[in-house]
Amino acid sequence: MSAPRPQAEGEAAPAAAPPRHSGELGSTQASHRLLAYSDALLSIIATVMILPVAHTKIHPDQTLGESVQQLLLTKIAVYLMTFLIVTVAWAAHVRLFQVIELIDDVLALLNLACMMIITFLPYTFSLMASFPGVPFGIFMFSTCAIVIGLIQAVIVAYGFYHPYLLNRQIQVSENQAFYKHHILQIILRGPVLCFLAAIFSFFFIPMSYVLLGLVIFLPHITRLIIWCKNKTVGPKDDEESHRLEALAFYLNEPLSKERVEAFSDGVYAIVATLLILDICEDNVPDSKEVKDKFHDRLTEALSEYGPNFLAYFASFVTTGLLWFVHHSLFLYITKTTRFMGLLNTFSLAFIGGLPLAYQLTSEFAEKSHNEIEAIQVSCVITFFASIFQFAIWITALFHERETLHPLARYGGKEHAFMFAKLALYPCVSLGAFFLTCLLSKFSTAIFHIVQIVVPFAFLALRILVRISLAIIKSMLSLSRRKNVVLDEEETCLSPAETLS
Amino acid sequence: MSAPRPQAEGEAAPAAAPPRHSGELGSTQASHRLLAYSDALLSIIATVMILPVAHTKIHPDQTLGESVQQLLLTKIAVYLMTFLIVTVAWAAHVRLFQVIELIDDVLALLNLACMMIITFLPYTFSLMASFPGVPFGIFMFSTCAIVIGLIQAVIVAYGFYHPYLLNRQIQVSENQAFYKHHILQIILRGPVLCFLAAIFSFFFIPMSYVLLGLVIFLPHITRLIIWCKNKTVGPKDDEESHRLEALAFYLNEPLSKERVEAFSDGVYAIVATLLILDICEDNVPDSKEVKDKFHDRLTEALSEYGPNFLAYFASFVTTGLLWFVHHSLFLYITKTTRFMGLLNTFSLAFIGGLPLAYQLTSEFAEKSHNEIEAIQVSCVITFFASIFQFAIWITALFHERETLHPLARYGGKEHAFMFAKLALYPCVSLGAFFLTCLLSKFSTAIFHIVQIVVPFAFLALRILVRISLAIIKSMLSLSRRKNVVLDEEETCLSPAETLS
Repeated sequence: MSAPRPQAEGEAAPAAAPPRHSGELGSTQASHRLLAYSDALLSIIATVMILPVAHTKIHPDQTLGESVQQLLLTKIAVYLMTFLIVTVAWAAHVRLFQVIELIDDVLALLNLACMMIITFLPYTFSLMASFPGVPFGIFMFSTCAIVIGLIQAVIVAYGFYHPYLLNRQIQVSENQAFYKHHILQIILRGPVLCFLAAIFSFFFIPMSYVLLGLVIFLPHITRLIIWCKNKTVGPKDDEESHRLEALAFYLNEPLSKERVEAFSDGVYAIVATLLILDICEDNVPDSKEVKDKFHDRLTEALSEYGPNFLAYFASFVTTGLLWFVHHSLFLYITKTTRFMGLLNTFSLAFIGGLPLAYQLTSEFAEKSHNEIEAIQVSCVITFFASIFQFAIWITALFHERETLHPLARYGGKEHAFMFAKLALYPCVSLGAFFLTCLLSKFSTAIFHIVQIVVPFAFLALRILVRISLAIIKSMLSLSRRKNVVLDEEETCLSPAETLS
Repeated sequence: MSAPRPQAEGEAAPAAAPPRHSGELGSTQASHRLLAYSDALLSIIATVMILPVAHTKIHPDQTLGESVQQLLLTKIAVYLMTFLIVTVAWAAHVRLFQVIELIDDVLALLNLACMMIITFLPYTFSLMASFPGVPFGIFMFSTCAIVIGLIQAVIVAYGFYHPYLLNRQIQVSENQAFYKHHILQIILRGPVLCFLAAIFSFFFIPMSYVLLGLVIFLPHITRLIIWCKNKTVGPKDDEESHRLEALAFYLNEPLSKERVEAFSDGVYAIVATLLILDICEDNVPDSKEVKDKFHDRLTEALSEYGPNFLAYFASFVTTGLLWFVHHSLFLYITKTTRFMGLLNTFSLAFIGGLPLAYQLTSEFAEKSHNEIEAIQVSCVITFFASIFQFAIWITALFHERETLHPLARYGGKEHAFMFAKLALYPCVSLGAFFLTCLLSKFSTAIFHIVQIVVPFAFLALRILVRISLAIIKSMLSLSRRKNVVLDEEETCLSPAETLS
C-alpha cells in the first residue's frame, strides 16, 4: 500500500519485511508476493486467448460481418469462456487467501500446482470449441477443475491444521469449524458442478454446457436469491443473523481491493504489450523485398506500414487511458462489493478484446468495404469497456458512504471531475459509432488520430471542470460559507461512522 | 508490503489509502499502483521478444547447432538487447520514482507516454537485426531513447516545480538543486549516448553499436571505476564525502526491493503463460484430420501430442520453481545493491529463454539426432538462470549484515536450507548436462519427468536439511548453550546497528 519511501525502507526492512513469526516459526512468510504472482499469472492467462482470435486471417473479399459470425462461434467463445472461468477461479483464490494469511513452503508449492492446472484450462476450451460434439473436452476441463478444487481443499485443510497461518480474526474465533465449512463450500461448489457436467457429457452434452455456464454465474445467482428473499420475507431469525453478521465480511466483500487492482493491472498490461508482438513479427520488411522493390530505401518500405504504426499507437493510448480511468476510479473506491467486481470483470473482458480491434483497423486500413465495420467493432469494444467502468462508479455512488472516499462523493471536490473522466470514453466511442453510421466513408487514419488526441482531452477536461466549478461557485457565493462548513464536516467523517 | 488483512483494510482504507495530501491538494495520489503497472508493462516487454526466437522453425534435417548459430545472429540478439535495454530503462524509472513519491494526473499521463515509447523499442531492434548495415534502425532507436529521456526530464522538472510531490527527505533538504542535477544526470546519460550513436550511424555504424552497448553497461562501469579509485587513491576530501554520504542511498541502493520483486514476478509470470499460447495454437487437432486419420477418436489424436503436454508441464514446473527459489531468496534479502540487481537481470534474461527450451525439447521429442542437443540447450538455460540466483545469494553473504535477514546469515536457522534450495537447480541441470555428454541416447520424456519430480525434491530437502542439522546439533550439544546465546544476540540486532 505504501509508496516506496526508500530511506525508511532501508532501515526498517531487516526487522519488518521477512518472516512475521520468525520467533516461533522460521519458515512462515507473508503471502503478499505469492498473491501478486498469482494475480499476474491469472490475469495473463485470462487475456492471452484473445491472440488466436486476433490472428484469424480474414480474406479481403469476405465481408467482415460474416467473418465475425464465424469467429463468434469458436474463438471468441473460447476467449470469453476462458476469461470468465479464470475470473471465477481468481475470485475463489482471493477468498481462500483472505482466510489464510501467512504461507509456508508447502502452501507456496501447492499454490503453484494449482496455478499450473489453471494455466492449462485455455487448452481444454480450445478442444471444446473445435469438437463441440465430443465429450472429451468437457471431461478434460472438468477433471482440471476438480483437481484445482481438491488442491485448494488441501490448502484449506493444511491452513486449519496450522492455525497460526489463518486470518487473525478466524484464529481467535470460537467457531473455526463454521469458517472452515464455509470456505470449503465456496471452493468446492465449482468442482462439484463440473463433476456433474463430466457425467452428463457422456449422454447429454447440452446439459453439461448449461452446468458449466452455471459455474460462472452461480455465486451471483445465489446472492440474488438471498437478496430477493431478504426483501420479500425479511431477514432471518436472531441467532442465524448473528452468525451471518460474523461472516458478513466474507459474504459482502469477497474481493480485496488490492487484488482487484493487481488483477486489472495485469490485464491492462498484457493487452498493451501484446500489440507490439504483432508489429515485430509482421511489420519488419523483408531485406530481399527492400532490395528488389524499393531499391534499398528502407524508409520507403516502412512507409507502407504507416497505418499499422498509427493503429498501434492509437490502441496503446486507448488501453493506457482506460487504465488511467480505472486507476483514478479505484483511487477513490474504498471497498469492492461483489457486484462491482462483476462489472469490473465485464469491463476487463472487453479490454481484452482491444487487440482484435487493433488487428481489424490496421488490416482494413486501405479503403476497403470493411473499413467502416472495423471501426464500428472498435467503437463497440471501447464503448462497453468504458461503460462498465462507468457502471462501477454508479454502483459505488448508490452506497457511497461505504464504498467511496469523501472527496469523490456527491458534493466532494473530485466528484464532478471523476464523472467527466468516466463519461469521456463512452461519449467519444458512441459519437464515433454514430458518425460511421451517418457517413458512407470514414478513414481509419482519422479514427486513430482521434484516439491519440484523447489524452489531451483529459487535461483539457480538468481545466474545463475547474472553470465551470468556479463559475458555479461564484454564482452560489452567497451561500458559500455554509457549503464550506458542510464540506469539511463530510471530509472529516471517521471511518467507523462511514462504515456503519 | 502488508499481507491483506481484510477487516483492518475495510476500516482503515477510507482514511488511509487515497490522496495523501487530500487536505491541501485534491489530485495528488500515492504512486504505488502506477509503479506496479509500469513494472508489469516493462517486464512483459522485456520478455515477450523471446517469442519470435522460439517460433523460428528448424528443419528436421538441419542440425540444431547450425540453426542456433543462425538464430544467434539475429533473433537472440534482438531478444537480449531488448531485455537489457528495457532493464536499463526500468532501473532509471525506479530511481526517478524514488525521488518523486507522489503523483498527480499530469505525471500519470506523462508516465504512460513514456511507457508507450518503451514498448515500441523492440520494433526498432527488429529493424536493426534485419538491416544491420542501414542506419535507419539505430536512428529510430536513438530517437525513441531521446524522447523517453526528454519525457523523464519533464517529469523531474514538474516534480521539482511542485516540491510536495518529492521524497520527504529531498523536500526538506537544503540542496534540492544538487539532487535535481544528480537525477537528471542519471536519466539523461543514456539519451546523450544514443544521440551520439545516431550521429555516428551515418558515417561509421560499428561505433554506434559500441555506444549502444555502452548504454547498458555504463552505470556499472562508472561504479567499478569509482570503486577502483577509492581502493587505490582512497576516498575523497571531507566536504565532498559528506555530500556523497547524503546521497549515499541513491548511489548504493538504486533499486527498491519491492520493485525488483514486481519486475521479476512479471517476467516469471509471462514466461510461464506464454507456453500455453503455443499449445493452444499448435496442438489442437484439426477436426477433419481426426475424422480421416483417427476415425473420430479424439483421444488417439491427442495422444500424438503427449510429448508436448509433458514438455509444457515440465517447463511450467521449472519456471514456477525458479520463481519459488527467487521468492524464498528475496524473503531474506533486506537490501538490493546495484550488483545484485545486475545479477538478477542476468538470471531473468535466461528465465526468458525458457520458452525456447520448451520449443526445442517438444519439437525434437521423437528420437531425432537433435534430441540430445535440445536437452543440452535446456540444461544450459536452466543452469545459468539458477546459477545467477545463487550468485545473488553469495553476493548478499559478502555483506550479510547489510543485505540479509539474521535468519539467513551464517549460523542462522534458515541458512543451510536456503543454501540447499539455491544449489538444487544448478546441480540438477549440470548433472543432466554431463549425463547427456556421457550417454549417446537420452530421452526427452525422462528429462521432462525429472523436471516435474524436482518439487518433491524441495520438500525432501527440507526434511533432509532438518535431519542433518539435528545430527550436527546433537554432536555439538556440549557447546550448545553458548551457540544459542550468540544466535539470539544476532537476531536481536537493531536495524541501525545492522546498517552501520
